[in-house]
Amino acid sequence: MTLDEKEVKEQPDIKETVAGGGAAAGGEKEKEVVSYWGVQPSKVTKEDGTEWKWNCFRPWETYQADLSIDLKKHHVPKTFLDKFAYWTVKSLRLPTDIFFQRRYGCRAMMLETVAAVPGMVGGMLLHCKSLRRFEHSGGWIKALLEEAENERMHLMTFMEVAKPKWYERALVFTVQGIFFNAYFLAYLASPKLAHRITGYLEEEAIHSYTEFLKELDKGNIENVKAPAIAIDYWRLPADSTLRDVVMVVRADEAHHRDVNHFASDIHYQGLELKDSPAPIGYH
Amino acid sequence: MTLDEKEVKEQPDIKETVAGGGAAAGGEKEKEVVSYWGVQPSKVTKEDGTEWKWNCFRPWETYQADLSIDLKKHHVPKTFLDKFAYWTVKSLRLPTDIFFQRRYGCRAMMLETVAAVPGMVGGMLLHCKSLRRFEHSGGWIKALLEEAENERMHLMTFMEVAKPKWYERALVFTVQGIFFNAYFLAYLASPKLAHRITGYLEEEAIHSYTEFLKELDKGNIENVKAPAIAIDYWRLPADSTLRDVVMVVRADEAHHRDVNHFASDIHYQGLELKDSPAPIGYH
Ligand SMILES: [Fe+2]
Ligand SMILES: [Fe+2]
Ligand SMILES: [Fe+2]
Ligand SMILES: [Fe+2]
Repeated sequence: MTLDEKEVKEQPDIKETVAGGGAAAGGEKEKEVVSYWGVQPSKVTKEDGTEWKWNCFRPWETYQADLSIDLKKHHVPKTFLDKFAYWTVKSLRLPTDIFFQRRYGCRAMMLETVAAVPGMVGGMLLHCKSLRRFEHSGGWIKALLEEAENERMHLMTFMEVAKPKWYERALVFTVQGIFFNAYFLAYLASPKLAHRITGYLEEEAIHSYTEFLKELDKGNIENVKAPAIAIDYWRLPADSTLRDVVMVVRADEAHHRDVNHFASDIHYQGLELKDSPAPIGYH
Repeated sequence: MTLDEKEVKEQPDIKETVAGGGAAAGGEKEKEVVSYWGVQPSKVTKEDGTEWKWNCFRPWETYQADLSIDLKKHHVPKTFLDKFAYWTVKSLRLPTDIFFQRRYGCRAMMLETVAAVPGMVGGMLLHCKSLRRFEHSGGWIKALLEEAENERMHLMTFMEVAKPKWYERALVFTVQGIFFNAYFLAYLASPKLAHRITGYLEEEAIHSYTEFLKELDKGNIENVKAPAIAIDYWRLPADSTLRDVVMVVRADEAHHRDVNHFASDIHYQGLELKDSPAPIGYH
């Protein structure tokens, strides 16, 4: 077969139609691009037969959070590298506390834009390494990308309860630019350090969500209804509230903490991540 | 809850044990790191109850390739950007042809190390954009990361039938360094162009696998037994051969071609990818 132009089918002009049916995620009008390429958006239904209304995640990615996870586990920094990671994270805490004060909803939203970076950077670098070295990843590429996805879902959830202001958007833009590159370089230089830093960041996230819960319980933050996206993602009861959402998000963070400290531990033993099977689907 | 060191549980020293049971992927001895973090490798079983032996992919990611896909579809370059993409890809063909000659097994393996880059770069950039702009991705992050994963599985498959020589490893190292950065910049500058380039790369991949099949049919390349990883990933019959594997891989490339030209088409209409639901699980 050649790709000789005479042989191939001509591509007709593409028409844009606005599909009548289908609930649109995020309240936007759903546009369907009718394309020569015959790539149809997959029609997905929920267990009860109704149409799945989210494009950014699918029914098989939803789960029930394991709320029984130990929230107090902590990696006591022993080596210089551990201490460096620990104090790096601790020093980032002060400006964050000052900036957000007790606005935990806003804080959660902003921090999730940062939290979704390490998994993506790590997964991407392991992917490239796997290709370059012709070797298997032991599932770690997937495990880290899953973490990034999970963090992005945290963001999509908190977006529904706190709307970012223009200067917060500008801040996220800047922080992402700096943090992405810094973490990228850190991961290249020492995955051991990078995963330890993420482990400590997750410990801080647990702390932050615990404070969030306290403010909710005190009534300083209104315990609104849980966003629809959160109810579908964590398979929560229909009458769940923001408090329930913060509980499951905090459990997620504890799982991320475990995975990242574990990843760092593997490197500490002189092994590579691929030598130890990854905890895929560890929620 | 505070992370006060007195309150937290101490982390015991980590012991490394070599697990007795469990089939190891890739013939390596499976090491299990017993960790304080309680992160256990997930035990996965196949449909028939036997243990799943791959860490790099899971039963629910396997699929049967749609061999009925039209292999001759071609995007006729119309605009300057299209022509630029087309000739960029065409000009890369000549050195590749000269380097590999008729060694299609080796060629396939080497090209897959490159093919797995665009999906990862695109997915990563869309992920960062989604975070930065507090907006949904329409499923495109997942669709592109799935493509990258699928290409990595192609590589893991061809690795089993062709072992890379040292100068080929050196070449892959260099090509990845250049291509990753070039594609990254191209995607930042114009996702429309980047997806079009990938679309044409996939058209070339289809051509290359068609030539591979011809050589197999002529008997110039031995039609060996299909690697075990391929049989599990594409759910092939146990007695499948290399020819069957090349057939399903070629069908995958045709799907990638569709997705990428489609993505470029969406941009051509002045839309963003998130405005059109992504074809998740389009195999
Ligand atoms: Fe999070
Ligand atoms: Fe987290
Ligand atoms: Fe491929
Ligand atoms: Fe491909």
